[in-house]
Order: sequence, then structure tokens, then C-alpha cells
Amino acid sequence: MTFPPAGPVDPAPVDPVVHQRERLARVALGELGEPGDPRLVSLVAELGAATVRDLLAAERDPGRGVLADVAARLETTNPARDLERAERLGIRFVIPGDDEWPAQVDQLMTTETLHDRGGPPLGLWVRGPMRLDELDASVAVVGSRSATTYGTTVAGEIGARVAREGYTVVSGAAFGIDQAAHRGALAAGGRTVAVLACGVDRAYPARHRALLDHLAATMAVVSELAPGRAPTRIRFLSRNRIIAALTRGTVVVEAAVRSGALNTAGWAARLHRPLMGVPGPVNTAQSEGVHQLVRKGAATLVTRGEEVLELVGASGHHLDEPRRGRTHARDSLSGRHQQVLEAVPLGSPAHSDSIARTAGIGLLDTRSILRRLERAGFVEHGTGGWRIRDADAPDSAAKTSEVPTMNT
Amino acid sequence: MTFPPAGPVDPAPVDPVVHQRERLARVALGELGEPGDPRLVSLVAELGAATVRDLLAAERDPGRGVLADVAARLETTNPARDLERAERLGIRFVIPGDDEWPAQVDQLMTTETLHDRGGPPLGLWVRGPMRLDELDASVAVVGSRSATTYGTTVAGEIGARVAREGYTVVSGAAFGIDQAAHRGALAAGGRTVAVLACGVDRAYPARHRALLDHLAATMAVVSELAPGRAPTRIRFLSRNRIIAALTRGTVVVEAAVRSGALNTAGWAARLHRPLMGVPGPVNTAQSEGVHQLVRKGAATLVTRGEEVLELVGASGHHLDEPRRGRTHARDSLSGRHQQVLEAVPLGSPAHSDSIARTAGIGLLDTRSILRRLERAGFVEHGTGGWRIRDADAPDSAAKTSEVPTMNT
Repeated sequence: MTFPPAGPVDPAPVDPVVHQRERLARVALGELGEPGDPRLVSLVAELGAATVRDLLAAERDPGRGVLADVAARLETTNPARDLERAERLGIRFVIPGDDEWPAQVDQLMTTETLHDRGGPPLGLWVRGPMRLDELDASVAVVGSRSATTYGTTVAGEIGARVAREGYTVVSGAAFGIDQAAHRGALAAGGRTVAVLACGVDRAYPARHRALLDHLAATMAVVSELAPGRAPTRIRFLSRNRIIAALTRGTVVVEAAVRSGALNTAGWAARLHRPLMGVPGPVNTAQSEGVHQLVRKGAATLVTRGEEVLELVGASGHHLDEPRRGRTHARDSLSGRHQQVLEAVPLGSPAHSDSIARTAGIGLLDTRSILRRLERAGFVEHGTGGWRIRDADAPDSAAKTSEVPTMNT
Repeated sequence: MTFPPAGPVDPAPVDPVVHQRERLARVALGELGEPGDPRLVSLVAELGAATVRDLLAAERDPGRGVLADVAARLETTNPARDLERAERLGIRFVIPGDDEWPAQVDQLMTTETLHDRGGPPLGLWVRGPMRLDELDASVAVVGSRSATTYGTTVAGEIGARVAREGYTVVSGAAFGIDQAAHRGALAAGGRTVAVLACGVDRAYPARHRALLDHLAATMAVVSELAPGRAPTRIRFLSRNRIIAALTRGTVVVEAAVRSGALNTAGWAARLHRPLMGVPGPVNTAQSEGVHQLVRKGAATLVTRGEEVLELVGASGHHLDEPRRGRTHARDSLSGRHQQVLEAVPLGSPAHSDSIARTAGIGLLDTRSILRRLERAGFVEHGTGGWRIRDADAPDSAAKTSEVPTMNT
């Protein structure tokens, strides 16, 4: 599994003052907006959080009114105070440009939305000693809260097996499969991380307080949401994209037909990361969703940890990966991104108005998409306009992405 | 599911005397050879059983010595007596050219061998009132003898469901999945047929005497082997090709990694008929073989009868089938058959020596393969030599095959 060509948002050396300003702006915007709100994500990706915050504060809503709700509440925030409070609780806020930023989530920038959620997180709140960039070798194990004993047994075994191989298990904090996956990894002496749909200082469900405290003490508990914020249904949907985007692949162990785990599966598929399903008895509702995924060809059937490791590339398979890696990166672009990318000439560069005409997309949108494609390493801008970035050039992001960065 | 372009061996009106001579010869050869022996099958397909029998009797072995073992024992047979005896037991011997001959098994003529078995049967011994041509709408349900309660429950449910839709269930007569599939179909008031690896007058396993007698009284018990002959391991392998070739698709419910059901699955795959696998708990050995089939993409995961019916074309899907039907027929040819077929010109006809040179296959072999391809409707012979049979001609076998012949 190769992560797509997407580096930190700002590849230039970071000015500490500018970077701190960006961090504070991201705290403020994150506290006002909902995670994965495509309007906010898109503006921040284009202008940077500090600029968006400043424009909103000056009542010059860069979203042309659509962010009026955020702007109105901006003065109620005090991000510096919030960061301090978090720090006292042992919680840090990691943003793009930080050393430990998990670059693999940046692929969300060019990935189609799902249920109106999408885009990379503004930042990730972390409680625990583990660095987020260590998650580049990780596997998501997700599934039903109301799992059967069969399901929790198998999830525990898979969690243990991949953890023994040095992979970090990533899951939510629900009863059932999530819990079993964490326990399996812990029992094997391996690493496991919980991603929450609420602040990392909260315990939801409350009965998992001890598990979450243990993970925070030894591993990491992660959330897009600021400390104190409560879980809601929509926040679970947003959270699921983080689980899929942090990991090299997602394993679904038991999921009824309307299970939230299938939402995580949808994100893994959108990201073109390996999606795996563990089958079970056909006469239990808990396996129905998994069987549907396998039946329609969205997920590969797996029966044990070895097969998971094989698919996420832990068995020397990364030797075969480069070609697929590059295809995947392009495939994972949303329709409009692909449309613009197709319109950029391969040879001599073109200006954005010409590209916009070819793509059949408005000039402003085309410019904004071009800037995102530039950050993701697909195109570059120089004298004469935009052109496709040469994947064979030695310093190309697309090229770099073809070398799997494995941590173990 | 469309059966491939293969009609009776002799499409001309059958002379009753000639046909009876052929029947007796097939009885004799069948009693001496092993079912699915490619040497015998190939000679009979080319020359007809009567000619092969006569040549063997005259000690002019058409197999140039390879059939010496058969020839030596030829005088010990008395096929007329054997047919009479069978008739007294209520057993008939159905051969190509008979009204009830199940033409779908002729596809075996051009299908690659498996474990050195292959080719259509010389004939099928039948005990029971059901006509074999009614099996054109049938589904094989096979699996482990040492099935779990889970497996037998699901096999019974699937047998019942497809039988209620008017499909005939086809299976062996073993304990476990075979038994459960028959019982499911019977309980639903549907039809089910057992194909044996021994004579249809025998009960193997002995404890299934009552089940087999019931099937013989109301449905049909079928075998390639003459009455009285005993089951052997190799005969089970030959039998499995008949189960796969009689049916529109094969469902595997529980099969350990070395289960015989996987051999039946192999035949279904070679015949390009839908191969389906029912998943189960990953921690039971009985489902391992099925999971492997699904995992490597050989079988489609199915969880209930409706999904089986969908795949064998019972839900209006036959409207989409013609195009695939023709492709499948060609795909199912063995490598050498395809090689010869590719060498036959599309336009003006060519003589077999020219085709042999193009195909890079010896003249004798090329001629024999051409005759088989002719019988299967792929090529035709006229003045000027061999040419591809026009699939769009009104009386073409290839064309005819595109109209699914459904019984219900």
C-alpha cells in the first residue's frame, strides 16, 4: 500500500510564528464548524486557516455568506486559552506542517465526499505518547457494536496478529468489535489507537473510561473534535473517514446491513485502500453487511490476520505496488478534480482560463482545484501557466509516493 | 445461463437400428473402461462407439495399442443382456441422440481435463421417472460429508428455495451437505436428483438406501457407471464432472481445504458455469475451502437461495445472457481446441493440412479436433474445406444456444 502523492500543506520550511497562528486559527475554526464540513475544508485548503479566520473576523465571509454561522460565533472563541487547557490535560493539537502530522490523511483533500462529509481534518487532538506519524503502518479493524462472541473472537485474533507484526490497530471506542480489536492488540503486546467522535477527554461509551485511559497512558486517543465536545451521529460519520484515512486498509468484522462500520468501509473504498471483510454464518444479521461488501466485490474476503497483512503489503508485496500506487492516486480524485486534471496539457503549460474552458468548469472553481492538485503533487505552476508534474522527475511527489514508507 | 452450442452427436434423424447398435456399443465400452477416461472418450467422440467397439473386436485397436486393456476384455461383455437386466430393475441407459439426452453435458467434449478425467459420458444410467432433459433448469448443491449443523441447515434452505422456484437440485448421495440439499428440496415439494459414483442399483453409503429408493421412485438416480459397479475414489472424481455439467451452476456449502466438493467446483469453473460459495465461521475447517474459492475470485459469495437464483439466471437476467453465452462457449474450449479454432479462416474455407500448419498441431490431431468442433457447432465442412460456422445463420447451433431453454 502506497500513500498517494500528498505532502504537508506547506512544504516550505515552517516559520514558527506563522505556524502557531495557523494552529490557533485551526483550533478556532474547528470549534465553530462541524468536522468534515466540505465548505470549511475547501476554503481552508485553499487559503489557509489563518486567512479564513481573519476574513471571517472582518465580516468578509470568503464563503460568500455560507459561513455566516461560523463567522457570527467567531468572537466567542479563545483558541490560545483552549490550547493551554488541553495541554494541562496532556492533550496536544497536531496540524499539517507538524513533524508528526500523518500525511496519509491529506489524501482526503481530493477524495469524493460521503454523506456530505469530506476533506482532511483541520487538525487532530491527541491524548497519549504515541506519535501520529507512526500510524503509517496501521490497520483499521471495525465492526458492529452488537457483535456476537464469534465476531469479537475473530476481531481480537486479527487485532493481535497484525499488532504482533508491528502494525498499529486503529478503531473506534465502541463495545463489540472495536473493543475486541483493541484488546487483541494489547494482549499481544502491540499498539492500538482509538479515534473518537467526541473530545479525547471524554469517555463514550462511559463504561470504556478505563480502556480509553489506558490507551491514553500508553498509546494514543485521537479526535478531530476539541476537548469537551460531545458525540453526535454526524460526528461518527466524520470520524469514520479519519479511521479509514489514517490506515493502510480497513477490516470489517461483523456489520449488519445498516452498520456504521459500512460507512468506514465506504471511506476505505473511496480512498482506494484495501477493504477487507471477515465472513460469518449467513444466518446471523451481524455478518450480512460484510457479505454484501464481498458479494458485490467491494471487499476482499479475509479469514485471518495473515491475509490482512498480505493485502496491506506486509509480505514483500510492496515490490509490486508502485504501478498500482500511481493509478490509485489519480483514481481517488473526485470527478471534478479529475476533470480539471484531464484538462491540464501534458506538454507546454496552459493558463487557468484555458484549462477552465477545456474542463467545462468555472474559472474560480478551476483555480481552486488547480491549487489543490498542485499541493497533492499532480500539477505544477510556472512561467507560462499550469502543467502536469513529471512523475519521473527525481523530486516529484508522485514519484516519492511510490516508495512505501513503512515504519517497521 | 445459456448452455453452449452443442447438440446431439448425430443431428440427422436417427435410424433406430443404428442407434440401438450405438447404445449397445456404449454399454460394452462403458463396462470395460473407466468413466471419463480421455482416451476412450476422444475415440468415441470421433468415430462413434459402434465403430470403436468393432475395431477393438477385430483387434485393430484404433487407439494404437493404448486401448489394448479394453480390447482384451471385450468378448466378456454382453451388452444386450445387461440392458435387459437393467430394464427389469427399472433402469434405462440414455445416450446422445435419445430425446431425453441432457445436451448440456456435451460441453464436456471441448472442456479441459481435470485430474486426467474429462469428456462427456458414454451414456447415463437412470433409475427413476424424471427425464434427464428436464435437468436443463438445475442447480448443483455440494459440500462436505462431515458438515456442521450450520452447513446442513443452510444447504437445506438453499435446496428448498431453488426447488420452490422450479429448479431441480442435483447432488451426490453422501452424508452431510448432499443429504441436506436433497431433503431441503423434497421438503419444499420440489425436485432433486442424485448422481452416483457407482451403479444406480447400489446404495452408497448403505444408510442412504431409503433416500436413494425414494429418489428413484419419485425423481431420478443417475450414474455413468453400469448397474452393479462399485464406487472408487477415481469414480467420485469422474462423477463430479457430471454433476457440474448437468447443472446451470454449482453452490458449495462447506468444504474443507481438501474436500471433493472443490473438485466439483473445479469442473463448474472449467465449464464457465456460475460457481457459488456459502461463507461460514472462519474458525471452522469446514468453511475453509469455500473461503479460499471466494477469496481468489473463483466463486461468488452467496448467502441464500435468492442469490443463487439470480446467478443462474432465474430473475429475468437471461435477457442479458446471449452475449456472454457465446463468449463462454468459446472460453470453455481447451487450449488445443482453441488453437485449432483460431486457425480456421473466417472467410473462404481451408483444408485441414493448412489449418494444422497454422495451428502448429499435427494433422491427425487437427482433423480429430476439427470434427469435434464441428459437432459442437463452431466450424463446418463443405466444398473447399473447413470454415467458421456463421453464428448469425438461422440454423446455427451457436445461434440456437443463445436462446436459454428454461423449463419453468
